[in-house]
Amino acid sequence: MKTLSLLGSTGFIGRGVLKVVEAFPDRFKVEALAARSNSELLYEQAIRFHPRVVCIFDAVKARELESKLRPKRVKVVTGGDGLRELASLKCAQMAVFALVGINGLHALIDAIRHHKEIAIANKELLVMAGRIIRDLAKRNNVKLIPIDSEHSAVWQCLEGQRRNELKRLVLTASGGPFLGWTRKRLAHVTPRKALRHPRWRMGRKITVDSATLMNKGFEVIEACTLFGVRADKVEVLLHPEAVAHSMVEFIDGSVLAQLSATDMRIPIQYALTYPERLASGFAPLDLGCLGPLNFKKPLKGEFPCLDLAYEAERRGGVLPAVLNAADEVLVDRFLRGKISFLKIPALLSRVIAKAKTVKNPALREILLADRWAREEAARLC
Amino acid sequence: MKTLSLLGSTGFIGRGVLKVVEAFPDRFKVEALAARSNSELLYEQAIRFHPRVVCIFDAVKARELESKLRPKRVKVVTGGDGLRELASLKCAQMAVFALVGINGLHALIDAIRHHKEIAIANKELLVMAGRIIRDLAKRNNVKLIPIDSEHSAVWQCLEGQRRNELKRLVLTASGGPFLGWTRKRLAHVTPRKALRHPRWRMGRKITVDSATLMNKGFEVIEACTLFGVRADKVEVLLHPEAVAHSMVEFIDGSVLAQLSATDMRIPIQYALTYPERLASGFAPLDLGCLGPLNFKKPLKGEFPCLDLAYEAERRGGVLPAVLNAADEVLVDRFLRGKISFLKIPALLSRVIAKAKTVKNPALREILLADRWAREEAARLC
Repeated sequence: MKTLSLLGSTGFIGRGVLKVVEAFPDRFKVEALAARSNSELLYEQAIRFHPRVVCIFDAVKARELESKLRPKRVKVVTGGDGLRELASLKCAQMAVFALVGINGLHALIDAIRHHKEIAIANKELLVMAGRIIRDLAKRNNVKLIPIDSEHSAVWQCLEGQRRNELKRLVLTASGGPFLGWTRKRLAHVTPRKALRHPRWRMGRKITVDSATLMNKGFEVIEACTLFGVRADKVEVLLHPEAVAHSMVEFIDGSVLAQLSATDMRIPIQYALTYPERLASGFAPLDLGCLGPLNFKKPLKGEFPCLDLAYEAERRGGVLPAVLNAADEVLVDRFLRGKISFLKIPALLSRVIAKAKTVKNPALREILLADRWAREEAARLC
Repeated sequence: MKTLSLLGSTGFIGRGVLKVVEAFPDRFKVEALAARSNSELLYEQAIRFHPRVVCIFDAVKARELESKLRPKRVKVVTGGDGLRELASLKCAQMAVFALVGINGLHALIDAIRHHKEIAIANKELLVMAGRIIRDLAKRNNVKLIPIDSEHSAVWQCLEGQRRNELKRLVLTASGGPFLGWTRKRLAHVTPRKALRHPRWRMGRKITVDSATLMNKGFEVIEACTLFGVRADKVEVLLHPEAVAHSMVEFIDGSVLAQLSATDMRIPIQYALTYPERLASGFAPLDLGCLGPLNFKKPLKGEFPCLDLAYEAERRGGVLPAVLNAADEVLVDRFLRGKISFLKIPALLSRVIAKAKTVKNPALREILLADRWAREEAARLC
């Protein structure tokens, strides 16, 4: 029986985690749940999974939830401190980071220091503070098991292989709903259109990031954190069918790829059961019925957000944090109809150009850069 | 420095092994070479690689070779006993089985008993005596490292994974030069046409076997021997591009595939260096420049030789040996213009139908069945 603390239980990934938990009631026990603001769903989940403690980030909602959950003997905590309490909970072996955004940063650091098993989908943390998190995990001998389908694919391809024989990681990208669109057409993309992802149903922010390929750019930086490589060893290939979730090329010319049906429960389950695999009722991939699989290198300049991510990783320091923070603001403005789709890369580029680079920044400097980038992005809108 | 005894040095695979040896002169030393009848090339190889001993199967040629190699202090042996001497040579850590046909059967058994590292491309042996070889290798704790690109792909995908989590092996098949041809067209296939393989340049027998998909059928049985599964866990997928060399599906719905350029040196090198990988000068796979990849299940009845292989494995006993032996005779007759292309599966089917099944046959019974099948096939021509 593996005990879990699930940070981010009401989002796309968090709900998937709970589906896996429900499918294997003898293998997993949820000890803690955290959500940002969806207290209704969090309440339902608490009733269903009987955690010892729940955290709702929003303090006002926390008081309300507390009174509802008191009869059920579920402790309610709130805010960043609440998240930190969940991440270092004694009774939970594994901390699952399925939050969106940067609220969980200190909680992740606590979880590593407490030697939790860590399954992570919270890419913002791995982007903004990659080096710090990687070094800390290494020092504490803690594995960061990826949940993202791409990084799970790489993780699976690397299992049992030697790291020094790795030549290149190849992350695949469906290319989003606007693959092949001209700038002219892209200028008129509405939030409604951007929210129609061709392959995955996810949250709003990540769906827009998938349309700009900013998400793939973040994944490149995330891969650098998770697998200890630089971005020049991470390639992106457009693969609209989203069947091959990523690949690893080795020094002898051999490539391993991981494929599966487009079902997030597969990488989620693997992260929870690693290094074991469990038989699941998920629809298997029927390769014999698939249409042809296409792979294409993105052209230089075709996806400016992707290029910005490579630049940010290459130049390093606080730039990944700046990119992440500015993008959060700009996507929010786009979704609220305040800026056009093409303004997202254009303004990101201006923020990056203006950012001060700091060599080997401390956490405090990263957080300052994050705040500066948010203000700067908002100012530019 | 790994010392090698290479059985089958003048064929397609053997020459590839020597190319790898030449590329890494500090890693490999050839101690012995064996060939069936190409004594000219064997002589050249002996001069180039300075083995202690060479074996030429043909006894007449052996005497001739002996007089040529005496001044070079290379011992010459011959026949089945010669092969056995090479397989159990004290000074060779690894025995590489790259022979075509069944001559090396006792040599393989000796190599296993002498706890050699074994790299094997000699599929006839794994087909005809699969259970015996597998049991012997298991008892002696000897790994049979595959050289065939398909089995190397499976081997690589299984590395670091748990065998009990394997759901299915998927062997890919280019489909040969006659993919999609009607029976009417197939009736007029000439040896010249059958020898034009679209992806690999190999020996004549295996190229015809690739055209009938008998080769893929043998690979299914070979996979059963190498990976300890039954044929109902081995699927074949037509994949004309021959980029994905095979795949493994796991119980959680995840699939791992191995891809590379169509270059036999890649799986050969991996077999020789396993579990290490070495950087090679081989052209890397440029996925971004590949056309689309297609995968298609073969239809029932589309490839009768493939169906026969499944039947032979399912019914077991001596039937795989019967299939292997009869096919060798029939392909030879086809190449000599004695029977038509479509007669290969038709007559194979008749031999199989007439064969007596023997449960858990001993080696002697397998060899008797082999001889019976050759006579029966010749009689039917």
